[in-house]
Amino acid sequence: MKEDEMTDQLSRVFAALSDPTRRDMVARLTDGDATVGDLAAPYAVSVQAVSQHLKVLEDAGLVTRSRDAQRRPVHLEAEVFDLMTKWIERYRRRAEARFQRLDAVLAEINDTTTNTEKPREGTAS
Amino acid sequence: MKEDEMTDQLSRVFAALSDPTRRDMVARLTDGDATVGDLAAPYAVSVQAVSQHLKVLEDAGLVTRSRDAQRRPVHLEAEVFDLMTKWIERYRRRAEARFQRLDAVLAEINDTTTNTEKPREGTAS
Repeated sequence: MKEDEMTDQLSRVFAALSDPTRRDMVARLTDGDATVGDLAAPYAVSVQAVSQHLKVLEDAGLVTRSRDAQRRPVHLEAEVFDLMTKWIERYRRRAEARFQRLDAVLAEINDTTTNTEKPREGTAS
Repeated sequence: MKEDEMTDQLSRVFAALSDPTRRDMVARLTDGDATVGDLAAPYAVSVQAVSQHLKVLEDAGLVTRSRDAQRRPVHLEAEVFDLMTKWIERYRRRAEARFQRLDAVLAEINDTTTNTEKPREGTAS
């Protein structure tokens, strides 16, 4: 996959999961494939609304549907999660590394303060 | 945080990251706090457009800005990533567990096929 295509898919995956009903549908598909009817059952929305949510999940590559079978069960493509996880982990690690450097600097400042035996605020009355 | 509030924030975080410019801004903030001007510099968009993107990131809790300082630097709240990671990991694990059960079933079917010495398709001419 080209970098541009990956960026586009990542945008679509994040957008697809920004809706609580779609997240719930993905969550239920982790237990097994399901038909549109199965997926619509617990919601107070029409089968048509569920179909529209499915279209968004399909465009993001998060689910696929078999073209031939009568029931056309919906299947979760769980490996698409990796696309997000990789992005999140990369930047979380960078943010953490930065905080660790800040902590080291703060610890050093603290050490210097302790060594010069400057009285801490609030301890002297 | 209540479950409803968490669901709402998760929706906002996913929506905030569904835009490549906003993802890029988040990526750059992992290197350190930045002003709106700093953040706008590399893009062919107005400072106003960048401010609107920042507002979306702020509403999602992904960034904060100090209210008092003149420069009002933007700060990344990297721990918000955890909210997403927890959601993704939970369902990825469920999907993986299901695939492992399927693999076990397939392996068993395969064993049975081998034991009964049924010729495999395509090997006999």
